[in-house]
Amino acid sequence: MDGVVEAIQTMRVRGAPAIGIAAAAGVAIAVHRAADSGGDYLDAAREAASVLMTTRPTAVNLRSGVERALRTARSTPTASDAVAAVDRLVTTMLDEQWVADRALSALGAALLPSRARVLTHCNTGPLATGGYGTALGIIRAASERGCVGLVYVDESRPRLQGARLTAWELARLGVPFRVIVDSAAASLMARNQVDAVVVGADRIAANGDVANKVGTYQLAVVAAYHGVPFYVAAPASTIDPATLHGRDIPIEERDPDEVHVVGHERVTPDGVQALNPAFDVTPAALITAIVTECGVLEPPYDAAIARLLAIGRSAGAGDSPSHGRTSDEVANASQD
Amino acid sequence: MDGVVEAIQTMRVRGAPAIGIAAAAGVAIAVHRAADSGGDYLDAAREAASVLMTTRPTAVNLRSGVERALRTARSTPTASDAVAAVDRLVTTMLDEQWVADRALSALGAALLPSRARVLTHCNTGPLATGGYGTALGIIRAASERGCVGLVYVDESRPRLQGARLTAWELARLGVPFRVIVDSAAASLMARNQVDAVVVGADRIAANGDVANKVGTYQLAVVAAYHGVPFYVAAPASTIDPATLHGRDIPIEERDPDEVHVVGHERVTPDGVQALNPAFDVTPAALITAIVTECGVLEPPYDAAIARLLAIGRSAGAGDSPSHGRTSDEVANASQD
Repeated sequence: MDGVVEAIQTMRVRGAPAIGIAAAAGVAIAVHRAADSGGDYLDAAREAASVLMTTRPTAVNLRSGVERALRTARSTPTASDAVAAVDRLVTTMLDEQWVADRALSALGAALLPSRARVLTHCNTGPLATGGYGTALGIIRAASERGCVGLVYVDESRPRLQGARLTAWELARLGVPFRVIVDSAAASLMARNQVDAVVVGADRIAANGDVANKVGTYQLAVVAAYHGVPFYVAAPASTIDPATLHGRDIPIEERDPDEVHVVGHERVTPDGVQALNPAFDVTPAALITAIVTECGVLEPPYDAAIARLLAIGRSAGAGDSPSHGRTSDEVANASQD
Repeated sequence: MDGVVEAIQTMRVRGAPAIGIAAAAGVAIAVHRAADSGGDYLDAAREAASVLMTTRPTAVNLRSGVERALRTARSTPTASDAVAAVDRLVTTMLDEQWVADRALSALGAALLPSRARVLTHCNTGPLATGGYGTALGIIRAASERGCVGLVYVDESRPRLQGARLTAWELARLGVPFRVIVDSAAASLMARNQVDAVVVGADRIAANGDVANKVGTYQLAVVAAYHGVPFYVAAPASTIDPATLHGRDIPIEERDPDEVHVVGHERVTPDGVQALNPAFDVTPAALITAIVTECGVLEPPYDAAIARLLAIGRSAGAGDSPSHGRTSDEVANASQD
């Protein structure tokens, strides 16, 4: 479990959906250990949950993954049942993620023109979701249909998820792309070289405001200025109905050394101070559409999101409106 | 002379004004060598000029510095006179730069509110101009008056001139600042944390369009979106009347390894391709004012620039309207 905490904090596991799944797995590990040592598996699950909840503040998936695992552990009468249930949950979450990613990717790919030149930010592929990918899933699905001309990959300072991870994933997939520095996006748009921007999300508020990797907001502003469609791709589980407005989303301020040090090399002079907000909030007004596995949401987002959540609730899926859960799980959830 | 070429190409000397002065010094060195070896100093100057002209395409100061040095060499009857004249020219250019920087910095500082929170991009201090600084000169002058609250320094990928050079200069000057990644600028503006953006220029077209470090245009778009004043600071010598429109400014595409490799560390996977435009063009419409040593230009810039150049011409200063040249030099120029 400590390993999971460390992996999330240091961002060896990152990407909102992957964090959610890893966090659920962290609870599962705690349940396993307690069961093995004859300890109280519910106490262990609760303790793991409370530590995991503090690892990173912005992505809603962390909280929902932990809560779901805790609920699953609570819903079983014995330690051995709990062990089986939390194991099954993690597998289910991975399956669900794949299904959701595939569905939203197909819907999103249909929005792109043929030979699309698409700009993306940060990393939203399998490394970020544990599934097929969200924004990168859309690019991947479009590419499978031969519809991608070129992908521009923002390097995504400070952690360079674009330059490192998205570049690696796109190279493996054989999708043509170029890495650019984050500040070059607007000048590409000014030369009509970008047909669409597709990004992921760490949390979507009930009004459609989107928290995502720092730089997303800047990209949304320049896309709007150039009339370039700006799409957010995320599973419906990324929508947090309890967060009414983007300003209510906590923005993680990470270690300034992420700015100061690249790889093993310090780039700023000693003693210099840096700011390092890991995320920013893009207001709904700058977003052309939010692509979920349940459908493509369009403005006004508050109404579209309310409809989507209502459908989720009427399907009996509780806090997570989107996924085709197993009947076991739905039963477990309704016991809670 | 080869050393000067190498220093400009590898950006050990960079910043438009510093490039201009270094290029003139390159011609001066060639004249020296020819005079020492009894060679034809004019041939040597012409040869040096033609090599130097190819080092970097965007900054107009390179061309004007080289042309001025060539004209100075041509205007003298003997090798020893030429040596003295080109030496004097380099010293004069440094003096002029200091005078121009101080003047424009004073004018620019007066535009800032008290306790201003100023965002700047790339490096425009003494390391970039050989003088007092342009955009950073404004910040420095405002700080000397106690008028700077905080400076946000864009790190300025790929070469990190902000993180490395501006941070170093501001730390030495004791001006409070924070380094940020380039993509964080918009989110600071959204939270009303930026009162003004001040940047330099590598070339200003006759219509007021400005070529400057990549990312400047993106910053101008987000500043306009947030109603944050966007100031360009540059000596009048940066205005190129022969360039009518920003689209006519050649944008240098530099080695993609500047994106791939930070310090000594490769950040992208092997085999990946990157784009590396070193500059972009900000249209005049996004610029609140252009601060020169001759005055603060405001829209419409075509008329303001025409007036400024007319004043320069009527003062008999030929290609360089702005500087208080020595009478020797003006005499030399008029002989050409």
